[in-house]
Amino acid sequence: MTEELLKQARSAHEAARILKTCSSSQKDQALTAMAQALRERQEEILAANKLDLEQGKEQGLGSALLDRLALSEERLCGIATGLDELAALPDPIGEVSGMWKRPNGLEVGLVQVPLGVVAMIYEARPNVTADAAGLCLKAGNAVVLRGGSEAIRSNLAIGKVISEAACEAGLPQGAISVVQNTDRSLVAELIRLRDYIDVVIPRGGAGLIRTVVEGATVPVIETGVGNCHTYVDKDADLKMALEIAINAKVQRPGVCNAMETLLVHEEIAPKLLPTLGAELGKANVQLRGCSRACQLIPAASLATDEDWAKEYLDYILAIRVVSSFDEAIAHITQYSTGHSEAIVTENYSAARRFLAEVDAAAVYVNASTRFTDGAQFGLGAEIGISTQKLHARGPMGLTALTTTKYIVYGNGQIRS
Amino acid sequence: MTEELLKQARSAHEAARILKTCSSSQKDQALTAMAQALRERQEEILAANKLDLEQGKEQGLGSALLDRLALSEERLCGIATGLDELAALPDPIGEVSGMWKRPNGLEVGLVQVPLGVVAMIYEARPNVTADAAGLCLKAGNAVVLRGGSEAIRSNLAIGKVISEAACEAGLPQGAISVVQNTDRSLVAELIRLRDYIDVVIPRGGAGLIRTVVEGATVPVIETGVGNCHTYVDKDADLKMALEIAINAKVQRPGVCNAMETLLVHEEIAPKLLPTLGAELGKANVQLRGCSRACQLIPAASLATDEDWAKEYLDYILAIRVVSSFDEAIAHITQYSTGHSEAIVTENYSAARRFLAEVDAAAVYVNASTRFTDGAQFGLGAEIGISTQKLHARGPMGLTALTTTKYIVYGNGQIRS
Repeated sequence: MTEELLKQARSAHEAARILKTCSSSQKDQALTAMAQALRERQEEILAANKLDLEQGKEQGLGSALLDRLALSEERLCGIATGLDELAALPDPIGEVSGMWKRPNGLEVGLVQVPLGVVAMIYEARPNVTADAAGLCLKAGNAVVLRGGSEAIRSNLAIGKVISEAACEAGLPQGAISVVQNTDRSLVAELIRLRDYIDVVIPRGGAGLIRTVVEGATVPVIETGVGNCHTYVDKDADLKMALEIAINAKVQRPGVCNAMETLLVHEEIAPKLLPTLGAELGKANVQLRGCSRACQLIPAASLATDEDWAKEYLDYILAIRVVSSFDEAIAHITQYSTGHSEAIVTENYSAARRFLAEVDAAAVYVNASTRFTDGAQFGLGAEIGISTQKLHARGPMGLTALTTTKYIVYGNGQIRS
Repeated sequence: MTEELLKQARSAHEAARILKTCSSSQKDQALTAMAQALRERQEEILAANKLDLEQGKEQGLGSALLDRLALSEERLCGIATGLDELAALPDPIGEVSGMWKRPNGLEVGLVQVPLGVVAMIYEARPNVTADAAGLCLKAGNAVVLRGGSEAIRSNLAIGKVISEAACEAGLPQGAISVVQNTDRSLVAELIRLRDYIDVVIPRGGAGLIRTVVEGATVPVIETGVGNCHTYVDKDADLKMALEIAINAKVQRPGVCNAMETLLVHEEIAPKLLPTLGAELGKANVQLRGCSRACQLIPAASLATDEDWAKEYLDYILAIRVVSSFDEAIAHITQYSTGHSEAIVTENYSAARRFLAEVDAAAVYVNASTRFTDGAQFGLGAEIGISTQKLHARGPMGLTALTTTKYIVYGNGQIRS
């Protein structure tokens, strides 16, 4: 254990004790000050980001990764605006969701309180540093941020700017901190600091999530891995199916709610697949089909079992023709990661069964899986998309960053 | 991995797929049938229990443990009545807690669904086998039950009776299963079966909980460890403080919501402690005090730092005199396990600050900590008391055994 990390975690724990009693206006003033500081101190952040980008190019990072890493005046303004919007949202803390009187006169209530200290473990996007800090703070939590080594200078610069602004606005030292040392062994230590950290949220690829789940003793909220399916039922509207399938695959293939496998009922496959195959081909999507799909789409290559399980996050789509609704459900049950699943159908009973039988964070009828997102669902800002069943499932807004406590008012009750 | 355990987990996983589509009346009929079977097949359960008790005596188990292990006609009827009461409770599954329309016409709703497969890991009480199975089933979950080796014959007998009754009532095979092999290494395997098990709930002593938290990759809900405090403020009603302190310690010392440390403000200590010391002495409670407490209670021995951290679960109480409200809060912050904490005071601001600043599942003003319990809080039956912050906190009723999923109704929406 490095002393530095332990010191940070202790300081966050101490800050959380104070943060939980801060008023909404104190927290909102801090968020506004953080936004303002990001606008005023752009230069030092962009200078740090430039160094990260240069190093990234030297190390041969791909263009997609470099794009995620890059900041600009415009992007920083966007991040600042996000913090301002957060300040304007209602504070989830202190809300009493119910209070009831027991026969012995005890009044038992349930109140929303902060989690305490949240550790975020993420990869190359430096915007997460400010976004996650803002969300955690708004919900009354301290946050320890551990981003990827590619973005370390940017993260430290953003962390410095926003934590100084938060302190000047009266929030405790240690409320926001960025882990300086990006050595991987530190992650293993961080996720076992049960005395100081209340929850770990990993946000990134399947490898990162697995490492955290395997090693953590602090409770984890898993996010993000999405092997998402769209099933085109025999009773689908053909044009709608075409548009939804193209959108779910092509609109932004690198994100977790993009479609990875298309399932098509055999009755509609001959009408849908030749056109869809051509359209996806034009969009440079590689197609990997079962043998029946390949017969209908000459450009498709034969899929292997691995294709059904794969989250491509790329311009690649697996396609399988199924003989029945049940076969589609069975395929999804076997391969789904429980993120987002969609059916396209005009059949009432098929829609109803799909909604009931598919076990995922978000289940759709007649819409693109790309909508699984906090803003799209109307939850405000989001800290990630939970693919686990405990605590939070699907897009996680502010409420997912809180817990509850029972408050009990008595006048001398004892138990008999 | 034993083949047997893997088979059980797979079978539970398959059963969960069917259970989640069972109607409330199917589940309730099964619960009623299980209760009826427990009444009708008492003899085979009591015979198995007798063998467990004989073995326990041979192995020299203490009387408290033997009492927990013992079943009787009366206790079995109590368990059966519990299942009947469960059948009468409302079904949490399928409740749509909200549905809203987005600007693009998408309708997004949030529906309560089962967790899937729950693994319960517990110790010597065979009643948990039926209670936990009933609660899990009512919430649409399959359950894998792994009780202690002392109770294995009783658990298998109860498991056989209730799972046969559930199957005859139309629930799937595998919905309820008891792990036969009580070898400890199997627990380590069970809590890593992420493909088949959705949540692990350990219920027992601190050692069991630690083992599960350390070894699990399946998400865990921690339960039960309670180092509970009562703080008698300077402005407390003396008679009320006396009654609450005695009740919280003596009424049932072996359970997690019993008081383990009493904190007393120095201004009221000379009035409270001599009387309280005498009363607790009469009740055979051993007292361990700070030096000031020992001056006021001659029978008390000097407490060590270990006493402040200890969950005695016995007729022992640690007592500390504090100079201020803040000192009391600091002590609780340092030693609390986040279970139940109480203040006795007539002072409005002290009560308000205590409720706000103490971080625990249940925080009390002027009542005994012994009330932290599902039935006492009016939640109906309870599967345990969560001392963690994720998912559920405090007494866990049926809702704690569910999760949510987003259901999204569209008419062709794609994302731009």
